[in-house]
Amino acid sequence: MAVGMSKPDNVAKAVKFIEEASSNGANIVSLPVSNLISNQIVMKRIVVVLVTVVVMVVVIVVVEVVVAAAATPATAAVVVVVVVVVVVTVVVVVVVVVVVTVEFFSSWQQAEPIPGPTTDALSQAAVSNSVYIVGGSIHERYRDKSFNTCAVFCPLGELIAKHRKVHLFDIDIPGQITFKESQNFAPGDQLTVFQTPYCRVGVGICYDIRFPEMSRIYAEQGCELLVFPAEFSIATGSKHWELLQRVRAVDNQVFVASASPARNSKGDYIVWGHSCVVDPWGDIIAKADEKESIVYADVDLSRLEEVRQVLPLDHHKRYDLHLPTQPSVSSSLRQHQ
Amino acid sequence: MAVGMSKPDNVAKAVKFIEEASSNGANIVSLPVSNLISNQIVMKRIVVVLVTVVVMVVVIVVVEVVVAAAATPATAAVVVVVVVVVVVTVVVVVVVVVVVTVEFFSSWQQAEPIPGPTTDALSQAAVSNSVYIVGGSIHERYRDKSFNTCAVFCPLGELIAKHRKVHLFDIDIPGQITFKESQNFAPGDQLTVFQTPYCRVGVGICYDIRFPEMSRIYAEQGCELLVFPAEFSIATGSKHWELLQRVRAVDNQVFVASASPARNSKGDYIVWGHSCVVDPWGDIIAKADEKESIVYADVDLSRLEEVRQVLPLDHHKRYDLHLPTQPSVSSSLRQHQ
Repeated sequence: MAVGMSKPDNVAKAVKFIEEASSNGANIVSLPVSNLISNQIVMKRIVVVLVTVVVMVVVIVVVEVVVAAAATPATAAVVVVVVVVVVVTVVVVVVVVVVVTVEFFSSWQQAEPIPGPTTDALSQAAVSNSVYIVGGSIHERYRDKSFNTCAVFCPLGELIAKHRKVHLFDIDIPGQITFKESQNFAPGDQLTVFQTPYCRVGVGICYDIRFPEMSRIYAEQGCELLVFPAEFSIATGSKHWELLQRVRAVDNQVFVASASPARNSKGDYIVWGHSCVVDPWGDIIAKADEKESIVYADVDLSRLEEVRQVLPLDHHKRYDLHLPTQPSVSSSLRQHQ
Repeated sequence: MAVGMSKPDNVAKAVKFIEEASSNGANIVSLPVSNLISNQIVMKRIVVVLVTVVVMVVVIVVVEVVVAAAATPATAAVVVVVVVVVVVTVVVVVVVVVVVTVEFFSSWQQAEPIPGPTTDALSQAAVSNSVYIVGGSIHERYRDKSFNTCAVFCPLGELIAKHRKVHLFDIDIPGQITFKESQNFAPGDQLTVFQTPYCRVGVGICYDIRFPEMSRIYAEQGCELLVFPAEFSIATGSKHWELLQRVRAVDNQVFVASASPARNSKGDYIVWGHSCVVDPWGDIIAKADEKESIVYADVDLSRLEEVRQVLPLDHHKRYDLHLPTQPSVSSSLRQHQ
């Protein structure tokens, strides 16, 4: 789905899509990530333009005043330089403080507790449509921290799992994308598995998919489907989006489903789109383009068994040469039956 | 390179290619796997045809003789059935024993010790051309066992590493490919890293690449290049060849190079070909088609550093949630400086 700037509109649209998917026979519905990243980047850009204009106006005024009032041109030059340096420094410091504060509270305002308004709407949608909902991700406020969190609901409307993104996305591709998720979020400290009558599901959010250990642990825990609400950018999505999903499926012989927002046309963070579902042989069995749509696929467990029989990777693993990728602390895996 | 039925011809051709690569500036040369798989499959097919013909001839003769000699048609029928069953059983048992024995000794004959004639030729080629050679793989005979082994030589001609394939390829895709490597080979029990003045290298053979833990250990051990002499079939190569190489590179932020024999046109095991080199961002920087050729690529360590700086995956790993993929026994990693 296309994710806009208005959170209530996004939630309302998500509920509408859940209804449509359910009416077409879906049992498990995943929403995409919706972090409103563009919002922050656009805001920063506006602030930078404003600061530049303010500084230039102040400097021009100072120069004019000093030149008109100074005893000699030399004195005027010294005074101008000193005043300009002081003005620029003060303005930059003030602006940095304001931007950081605004950004923090902007993020804080977007955040909400779980349960909260957004998850209440998802819970209600799960009941109304009798589906499991993997609720994309929202900014969760918990005590004094923000998390990037995916809430999962069963058809009874109960919150059966809550995955807080464990790998925060800090990237710097000069000229393409710079993003520091850890500035606004705290990382989760648990992996998340839940059981449905159809299959066992492991949940990750976006950047989590880059870490093969996580998918491996889910496979070792018996998951047959991994779901990744995500929001890859054009820069990384065009290179790695399909690759990562296909190989997590092939290496672990599981189904992998990803839900991305539709391509946005504004902001510096252009989303790749292309939600898809991959089968355990690495074949893409359902795929969206960059536009808004719902992707449907059957998680056919007989296909999974067939692949594991053809190529029994798990039996061929050499646990004498390496360790299983199990959690080092058993409590770090949160399981929901 | 195209791999034929004659081992001496293959070795001679390999030496010629090493000379050509070296004269074009190569410092590290990898040969492909050359298991003569087709040979065994063709032999099995001939044996099946011969057995069918022998059984049919014997049965026809028996029927003719018994019918001519029997007192009544009923007696003749009983005698024919009994004799046919006995003949078929005996022939099948004898043939199975012969095939298994021939296959074993055929494999045994192909096998040679290391050092042996083939590795002596590779050692000499390393000295003559002043290159490192990752010697594809040969059947190594060691005591009463056969291994699928890659011998690595330095420019002084010394055997600096020997990787015995640790994951044996047992696959069964009905109607496409059935192959049980473990019938003829024992698995290696060590991983293999060696150091060059250019970069640190981890070695795997073919099916080894399907196991992400192995590549991960190599990356944890500081390898910047993983080399996989390989021989994927059309059935799996068309689906997973590039995928696996690209993702091992992306997940571990290393270069990955694979060397495949050229596509063969005979036998049931049709090779995929397409040797290639992938950079740490997952881009294919050099690639062959299915025909015989040499693939050249620069292992540019500044590119590796750039990728690791842009996306510092290693710093983002959550070792509080999973273990490093280190060897469980330190001696299981054989390192060559």
